[in-house]
Amino acid sequence: MDEFELYLRAHTHLDNGDMDQIRSLAIPKTLRRNEFLLHEGEICRYKIFISKGLLRTFGTAADGSEHILQFAPEHSWTLDVESYDRQQPARYNIAAIENSEVLLWPKADFDKLLATIPSLQSFAQQLISRNIYNSGRRILTALSATPEEKYQEFIHSSPDLLARLPLHMIAAYLGISIKTLTRIRQAQLRR
Amino acid sequence: MDEFELYLRAHTHLDNGDMDQIRSLAIPKTLRRNEFLLHEGEICRYKIFISKGLLRTFGTAADGSEHILQFAPEHSWTLDVESYDRQQPARYNIAAIENSEVLLWPKADFDKLLATIPSLQSFAQQLISRNIYNSGRRILTALSATPEEKYQEFIHSSPDLLARLPLHMIAAYLGISIKTLTRIRQAQLRR
Repeated sequence: MDEFELYLRAHTHLDNGDMDQIRSLAIPKTLRRNEFLLHEGEICRYKIFISKGLLRTFGTAADGSEHILQFAPEHSWTLDVESYDRQQPARYNIAAIENSEVLLWPKADFDKLLATIPSLQSFAQQLISRNIYNSGRRILTALSATPEEKYQEFIHSSPDLLARLPLHMIAAYLGISIKTLTRIRQAQLRR
Repeated sequence: MDEFELYLRAHTHLDNGDMDQIRSLAIPKTLRRNEFLLHEGEICRYKIFISKGLLRTFGTAADGSEHILQFAPEHSWTLDVESYDRQQPARYNIAAIENSEVLLWPKADFDKLLATIPSLQSFAQQLISRNIYNSGRRILTALSATPEEKYQEFIHSSPDLLARLPLHMIAAYLGISIKTLTRIRQAQLRR
Protein backbone atom coordinates (compact mmCIF):
# COMPACT_ATOMS: atom_id res chain seq x y z
CA MET A 1 0.00 0.00 0.00
CA ASP A 2 1.32 3.44 -0.78
CA GLU A 3 1.20 6.47 1.52
CA PHE A 4 -1.89 7.92 -0.15
CA GLU A 5 -3.85 4.72 0.30
CA LEU A 6 -2.80 4.54 3.97
CA TYR A 7 -3.98 8.12 4.37
CA LEU A 8 -7.36 7.48 2.73
CA ARG A 9 -7.95 4.33 4.79
CA ALA A 10 -7.17 6.24 7.99
CA HIS A 11 -9.40 9.24 7.24
CA THR A 12 -12.26 8.14 4.98
CA HIS A 13 -14.65 5.27 4.36
CA LEU A 14 -14.01 5.12 0.63
CA ASP A 15 -14.34 1.67 -0.91
CA ASN A 16 -11.54 0.04 -2.91
CA GLY A 17 -13.08 0.92 -6.26
CA ASP A 18 -13.31 4.61 -5.41
CA MET A 19 -9.78 4.62 -4.02
CA ASP A 20 -8.45 3.02 -7.19
CA GLN A 21 -10.28 5.57 -9.31
CA ILE A 22 -8.86 8.51 -7.31
CA ARG A 23 -5.37 7.03 -7.32
CA SER A 24 -5.43 6.26 -11.05
CA LEU A 25 -5.86 9.94 -11.96
CA ALA A 26 -2.96 11.15 -9.79
CA ILE A 27 0.35 12.18 -11.35
CA PRO A 28 3.28 11.30 -9.06
CA LYS A 29 6.13 13.80 -8.87
CA THR A 30 9.41 13.93 -6.99
CA LEU A 31 10.73 17.24 -5.70
CA ARG A 32 14.23 18.01 -4.54
CA ARG A 33 14.80 20.21 -1.52
CA ASN A 34 14.20 23.88 -2.46
CA GLU A 35 12.51 22.95 -5.75
CA PHE A 36 9.39 24.98 -6.61
CA LEU A 37 6.09 23.33 -7.47
CA LEU A 38 4.37 26.68 -8.11
CA HIS A 39 5.69 30.18 -8.67
CA GLU A 40 3.77 33.36 -7.89
CA GLY A 41 2.06 34.48 -11.13
CA GLU A 42 1.67 30.97 -12.55
CA ILE A 43 -1.66 29.16 -12.53
CA CYS A 44 -2.14 26.51 -9.87
CA ARG A 45 -3.39 23.67 -12.05
CA TYR A 46 -3.24 20.83 -9.53
CA LYS A 47 -4.65 19.64 -6.24
CA ILE A 48 -1.52 18.52 -4.36
CA PHE A 49 -1.15 15.69 -1.82
CA ILE A 50 2.16 15.26 -0.02
CA SER A 51 3.14 11.58 0.28
CA LYS A 52 6.58 12.22 1.73
CA GLY A 53 8.58 15.26 2.73
CA LEU A 54 7.60 18.82 3.56
CA LEU A 55 6.43 21.79 1.48
CA ARG A 56 5.71 25.41 2.28
CA THR A 57 3.30 27.92 0.74
CA PHE A 58 4.55 31.47 0.95
CA GLY A 59 4.13 35.00 -0.36
CA THR A 60 6.83 37.57 -0.89
CA ALA A 61 6.45 41.14 0.35
CA ALA A 62 7.49 44.25 -1.61
CA ASP A 63 10.91 44.20 0.13
CA GLY A 64 11.50 40.59 -0.98
CA SER A 65 10.92 39.09 2.46
CA GLU A 66 9.14 35.75 2.65
CA HIS A 67 5.94 35.16 4.65
CA ILE A 68 4.76 31.61 5.14
CA LEU A 69 1.07 30.83 4.95
CA GLN A 70 1.28 27.08 5.46
CA PHE A 71 3.62 24.17 6.07
CA ALA A 72 2.45 20.97 4.38
CA PRO A 73 4.11 17.80 5.71
CA GLU A 74 3.48 14.21 4.55
CA HIS A 75 -0.20 13.21 4.59
CA SER A 76 -1.51 16.71 4.01
CA TRP A 77 -2.76 18.76 1.06
CA THR A 78 -1.77 22.09 -0.36
CA LEU A 79 -2.50 24.51 -3.19
CA ASP A 80 -3.08 28.18 -3.90
CA VAL A 81 -6.86 27.98 -3.39
CA GLU A 82 -7.76 31.17 -5.21
CA SER A 83 -5.57 30.38 -8.21
CA TYR A 84 -6.84 26.79 -8.36
CA ASP A 85 -10.54 27.63 -8.00
CA ARG A 86 -10.52 30.45 -10.54
CA GLN A 87 -7.56 29.32 -12.66
CA GLN A 88 -5.99 32.75 -12.31
CA PRO A 89 -2.35 33.73 -11.52
CA ALA A 90 -1.18 32.54 -8.12
CA ARG A 91 -0.40 34.96 -5.33
CA TYR A 92 1.75 32.40 -3.54
CA ASN A 93 4.72 30.12 -4.15
CA ILE A 94 4.85 26.45 -3.21
CA ALA A 95 8.30 24.91 -2.68
CA ALA A 96 9.84 21.83 -1.08
CA ILE A 97 11.68 22.23 2.23
CA GLU A 98 12.84 18.60 2.13
CA ASN A 99 13.15 16.11 -0.72
CA SER A 100 9.50 15.26 -1.24
CA GLU A 101 7.09 13.03 -3.12
CA VAL A 102 3.73 14.45 -4.14
CA LEU A 103 0.64 13.39 -6.06
CA LEU A 104 -0.98 15.87 -8.42
CA TRP A 105 -4.55 15.88 -9.78
CA PRO A 106 -5.37 18.23 -12.67
CA LYS A 107 -8.37 20.37 -11.64
CA ALA A 108 -10.71 18.90 -14.29
CA ASP A 109 -9.95 15.36 -13.08
CA PHE A 110 -10.37 16.20 -9.41
CA ASP A 111 -13.64 18.04 -10.10
CA LYS A 112 -14.90 14.90 -11.88
CA LEU A 113 -13.90 12.74 -8.91
CA LEU A 114 -15.73 15.10 -6.52
CA ALA A 115 -18.85 15.02 -8.67
CA THR A 116 -18.94 11.22 -8.93
CA ILE A 117 -17.76 10.13 -5.46
CA PRO A 118 -20.01 11.59 -2.72
CA SER A 119 -17.79 10.42 0.15
CA LEU A 120 -14.82 12.16 -1.43
CA GLN A 121 -16.96 15.30 -1.69
CA SER A 122 -17.90 15.18 1.98
CA PHE A 123 -14.30 14.44 3.00
CA ALA A 124 -13.13 17.43 0.92
CA GLN A 125 -15.69 19.61 2.72
CA GLN A 126 -14.37 18.47 6.09
CA LEU A 127 -10.87 19.48 5.02
CA ILE A 128 -12.16 22.89 3.91
CA SER A 129 -13.95 23.40 7.22
CA ARG A 130 -10.79 22.53 9.14
CA ASN A 131 -8.87 24.98 6.96
CA ILE A 132 -11.37 27.74 7.89
CA TYR A 133 -11.16 26.97 11.63
CA ASN A 134 -7.38 27.00 11.53
CA SER A 135 -7.26 30.25 9.59
CA GLY A 136 -9.57 31.90 12.11
CA ARG A 137 -7.37 30.78 14.98
CA ARG A 138 -4.25 31.91 13.20
CA ILE A 139 -5.74 35.37 12.54
CA LEU A 140 -6.68 35.77 16.20
CA THR A 141 -3.23 34.64 17.30
CA ALA A 142 -1.61 37.06 14.88
CA LEU A 143 -3.79 39.88 16.28
CA SER A 144 -3.55 39.15 19.96
CA ALA A 145 -0.57 37.01 20.93
CA THR A 146 2.88 38.13 21.99
CA PRO A 147 5.85 36.67 20.08
CA GLU A 148 6.41 34.29 23.03
CA GLU A 149 2.81 33.09 22.89
CA LYS A 150 2.99 32.66 19.11
CA TYR A 151 6.05 30.44 19.45
CA GLN A 152 4.49 28.44 22.31
CA GLU A 153 1.36 27.85 20.25
CA PHE A 154 3.46 26.67 17.32
CA ILE A 155 5.42 24.23 19.51
CA HIS A 156 2.10 22.97 20.79
CA SER A 157 0.32 22.63 17.46
CA SER A 158 3.27 21.43 15.36
CA PRO A 159 5.78 19.64 17.59
CA ASP A 160 6.81 17.32 14.73
CA LEU A 161 7.80 20.19 12.47
CA LEU A 162 10.02 22.01 14.91
CA ALA A 163 13.17 19.98 14.29
CA ARG A 164 12.61 19.89 10.53
CA LEU A 165 12.46 23.63 9.95
CA PRO A 166 15.25 26.19 9.77
CA LEU A 167 14.77 29.05 12.25
CA HIS A 168 14.18 31.67 9.57
CA MET A 169 11.17 29.72 8.27
CA ILE A 170 9.62 29.43 11.72
CA ALA A 171 10.10 33.20 12.08
CA ALA A 172 8.54 33.79 8.63
CA TYR A 173 5.55 31.66 9.64
CA LEU A 174 5.05 33.36 13.00
CA GLY A 175 5.55 36.87 11.65
CA ILE A 176 8.36 37.69 14.08
CA SER A 177 11.99 38.59 13.40
CA ILE A 178 14.65 35.91 13.58
CA LYS A 179 16.35 38.01 16.27
CA THR A 180 13.23 37.90 18.46
CA LEU A 181 12.78 34.18 17.82
CA THR A 182 16.39 33.49 18.82
CA ARG A 183 15.93 35.51 22.02
CA ILE A 184 12.76 33.58 22.91
CA ARG A 185 14.44 30.23 22.36
CA GLN A 186 17.48 31.18 24.42
CA ALA A 187 15.27 32.37 27.27
CA GLN A 188 13.45 29.01 27.19
CA LEU A 189 16.69 27.05 27.28
CA ARG A 190 17.83 28.98 30.33
CA ARG A 191 14.62 28.12 32.20
CA MET B 1 -39.02 42.66 -2.00
CA ASP B 2 -37.06 42.36 1.19
CA GLU B 3 -33.28 42.78 1.56
CA PHE B 4 -32.59 39.05 1.47
CA GLU B 5 -34.48 38.60 -1.78
CA LEU B 6 -32.61 41.57 -3.31
CA TYR B 7 -29.36 39.94 -2.21
CA LEU B 8 -30.24 36.54 -3.68
CA ARG B 9 -31.35 38.06 -6.99
CA ALA B 10 -28.09 39.99 -7.23
CA HIS B 11 -25.80 37.04 -6.43
CA THR B 12 -27.51 33.81 -7.51
CA HIS B 13 -29.70 32.33 -10.23
CA LEU B 14 -32.17 30.73 -7.82
CA ASP B 15 -35.72 30.51 -9.12
CA ASN B 16 -38.68 31.97 -7.24
CA GLY B 17 -39.74 28.63 -5.79
CA ASP B 18 -36.29 27.99 -4.30
CA MET B 19 -36.09 31.53 -2.95
CA ASP B 20 -39.48 31.19 -1.28
CA GLN B 21 -38.43 27.89 0.27
CA ILE B 22 -35.20 29.37 1.67
CA ARG B 23 -36.97 32.49 2.91
CA SER B 24 -39.80 30.52 4.54
CA LEU B 25 -37.39 28.71 6.90
CA ALA B 26 -35.67 31.89 8.11
CA ILE B 27 -36.39 33.33 11.55
CA PRO B 28 -36.23 37.15 11.52
CA LYS B 29 -34.67 38.83 14.54
CA THR B 30 -34.02 42.44 15.52
CA LEU B 31 -30.89 43.33 17.47
CA ARG B 32 -30.22 46.53 19.35
CA ARG B 33 -26.80 48.13 19.24
CA ASN B 34 -24.39 46.19 21.51
CA GLU B 35 -26.80 43.23 21.81
CA PHE B 36 -25.16 39.78 21.58
CA LEU B 37 -26.38 37.15 19.15
CA LEU B 38 -23.86 34.58 20.38
CA HIS B 39 -21.69 34.38 23.49
CA GLU B 40 -18.39 32.50 23.70
CA GLY B 41 -19.16 29.04 25.15
CA GLU B 42 -22.69 28.83 23.71
CA ILE B 43 -23.49 26.71 20.68
CA CYS B 44 -23.86 28.52 17.38
CA ARG B 45 -27.18 27.04 16.24
CA TYR B 46 -27.91 29.33 13.30
CA LYS B 47 -26.62 30.40 9.93
CA ILE B 48 -26.91 34.21 10.10
CA PHE B 49 -27.68 36.66 7.28
CA ILE B 50 -27.53 40.39 8.01
CA SER B 51 -30.39 42.27 6.33
CA LYS B 52 -29.64 45.63 7.93
CA GLY B 53 -27.02 46.97 10.31
CA LEU B 54 -23.57 45.76 11.27
CA LEU B 55 -22.29 42.89 13.44
CA ARG B 56 -18.86 41.87 14.62
CA THR B 57 -17.39 38.45 15.45
CA PHE B 58 -14.71 38.63 18.11
CA GLY B 59 -12.67 36.64 20.59
CA THR B 60 -11.44 37.78 23.98
CA ALA B 61 -7.85 37.26 25.07
CA ALA B 62 -6.77 36.14 28.56
CA ASP B 63 -6.39 39.80 29.58
CA GLY B 64 -9.97 40.58 28.52
CA SER B 65 -8.99 42.48 25.39
CA GLU B 66 -11.15 42.07 22.31
CA HIS B 67 -9.86 40.86 18.93
CA ILE B 68 -12.14 41.14 15.96
CA LEU B 69 -12.20 38.35 13.40
CA GLN B 70 -14.86 39.76 11.11
CA PHE B 71 -17.19 42.69 10.51
CA ALA B 72 -20.49 41.64 8.95
CA PRO B 73 -22.47 44.52 7.39
CA GLU B 74 -25.84 44.29 5.63
CA HIS B 75 -25.94 41.69 2.81
CA SER B 76 -23.32 39.44 4.36
CA TRP B 77 -23.28 36.25 6.44
CA THR B 78 -21.69 35.36 9.72
CA LEU B 79 -21.38 32.55 12.27
CA ASP B 80 -18.82 30.75 14.41
CA VAL B 81 -18.00 28.15 11.74
CA GLU B 82 -16.44 25.59 14.05
CA SER B 83 -19.25 25.80 16.61
CA TYR B 84 -21.91 25.64 13.89
CA ASP B 85 -20.40 22.74 11.94
CA ARG B 86 -19.71 20.59 14.98
CA GLN B 87 -22.38 21.97 17.32
CA GLN B 88 -19.79 22.52 20.01
CA PRO B 89 -19.20 25.55 22.29
CA ALA B 90 -18.29 28.71 20.41
CA ARG B 91 -14.87 30.30 20.67
CA TYR B 92 -16.17 33.65 19.49
CA ASN B 93 -18.85 36.21 20.33
CA ILE B 94 -21.17 37.78 17.78
CA ALA B 95 -22.68 41.18 18.68
CA ALA B 96 -24.39 44.08 16.96
CA ILE B 97 -22.42 47.30 16.41
CA GLU B 98 -25.54 49.09 15.09
CA ASN B 99 -29.24 48.36 15.49
CA SER B 100 -29.57 45.43 13.09
CA GLU B 101 -31.99 43.05 11.43
CA VAL B 102 -30.90 39.49 10.81
CA LEU B 103 -32.32 36.26 9.43
CA LEU B 104 -31.52 32.99 11.21
CA TRP B 105 -31.69 29.44 9.84
CA PRO B 106 -31.43 26.55 12.32
CA LYS B 107 -28.63 24.24 11.15
CA ALA B 108 -30.94 21.29 10.41
CA ASP B 109 -33.10 23.48 8.17
CA PHE B 110 -30.19 25.01 6.34
CA ASP B 111 -28.60 21.59 5.81
CA LYS B 112 -31.88 20.41 4.28
CA LEU B 113 -31.95 23.44 1.96
CA LEU B 114 -28.36 22.76 0.86
CA ALA B 115 -29.16 19.12 0.16
CA THR B 116 -32.26 19.88 -1.91
CA ILE B 117 -31.24 23.06 -3.79
CA PRO B 118 -28.06 22.47 -5.84
CA SER B 119 -27.65 26.16 -6.80
CA LEU B 120 -27.76 27.13 -3.12
CA GLN B 121 -25.09 24.49 -2.47
CA SER B 122 -22.82 25.86 -5.19
CA PHE B 123 -23.44 29.44 -4.01
CA ALA B 124 -22.55 28.42 -0.45
CA GLN B 125 -19.32 26.87 -1.76
CA GLN B 126 -18.42 30.12 -3.52
CA LEU B 127 -18.89 31.98 -0.23
CA ILE B 128 -16.67 29.47 1.56
CA SER B 129 -13.97 29.81 -1.10
CA ARG B 130 -14.06 33.60 -0.78
CA ASN B 131 -13.79 33.21 2.99
CA ILE B 132 -10.64 31.09 2.53
CA TYR B 133 -9.05 33.58 0.10
CA ASN B 134 -9.76 36.46 2.44
CA SER B 135 -8.40 34.61 5.45
CA GLY B 136 -5.19 33.83 3.58
CA ARG B 137 -4.74 37.48 2.66
CA ARG B 138 -5.48 38.59 6.17
CA ILE B 139 -2.91 36.16 7.61
CA LEU B 140 -0.23 37.39 5.22
CA THR B 141 -1.08 41.02 6.01
CA ALA B 142 -0.92 40.27 9.73
CA LEU B 143 2.51 38.65 9.23
CA SER B 144 4.09 41.12 6.89
CA ALA B 145 2.47 44.55 6.91
CA THR B 146 3.38 47.56 9.02
CA PRO B 147 0.56 49.18 11.05
CA GLU B 148 0.38 51.93 8.38
CA GLU B 149 -0.01 49.32 5.61
CA LYS B 150 -2.64 47.44 7.60
CA TYR B 151 -4.70 50.58 7.99
CA GLN B 152 -4.28 51.50 4.30
CA GLU B 153 -5.42 48.04 3.25
CA PHE B 154 -8.46 48.32 5.50
CA ILE B 155 -9.40 51.73 4.05
CA HIS B 156 -9.05 50.20 0.61
CA SER B 157 -10.99 46.98 1.24
CA SER B 158 -13.70 48.40 3.52
CA PRO B 159 -14.22 52.10 2.74
CA ASP B 160 -17.93 51.87 3.65
CA LEU B 161 -17.20 50.62 7.15
CA LEU B 162 -14.72 53.27 8.13
CA ALA B 163 -17.23 55.91 9.23
CA ARG B 164 -19.47 53.36 10.95
CA LEU B 165 -16.85 51.93 13.31
CA PRO B 166 -15.45 53.35 16.54
CA LEU B 167 -11.65 53.66 16.47
CA HIS B 168 -11.11 51.00 19.12
CA MET B 169 -12.86 48.41 16.93
CA ILE B 170 -10.76 49.23 13.90
CA ALA B 171 -7.68 48.84 16.12
CA ALA B 172 -9.01 45.50 17.46
CA TYR B 173 -9.54 44.30 13.89
CA LEU B 174 -6.10 45.38 12.67
CA GLY B 175 -4.25 44.09 15.72
CA ILE B 176 -2.68 47.45 16.51
CA SER B 177 -3.02 49.67 19.57
CA ILE B 178 -5.48 52.55 19.55
CA LYS B 179 -2.54 54.85 20.24
CA THR B 180 -0.75 53.69 17.09
CA LEU B 181 -3.96 53.95 15.06
CA THR B 182 -4.54 57.52 16.27
CA ARG B 183 -0.97 58.45 15.35
CA ILE B 184 -1.37 56.97 11.84
CA ARG B 185 -4.63 58.85 11.25
CA GLN B 186 -3.19 62.14 12.45
CA ALA B 187 -0.16 61.74 10.20
CA GLN B 188 -2.49 61.15 7.24
CA LEU B 189 -4.57 64.23 8.02
CA ARG B 190 -1.43 66.37 8.08
CA ARG B 191 -0.43 65.17 4.60
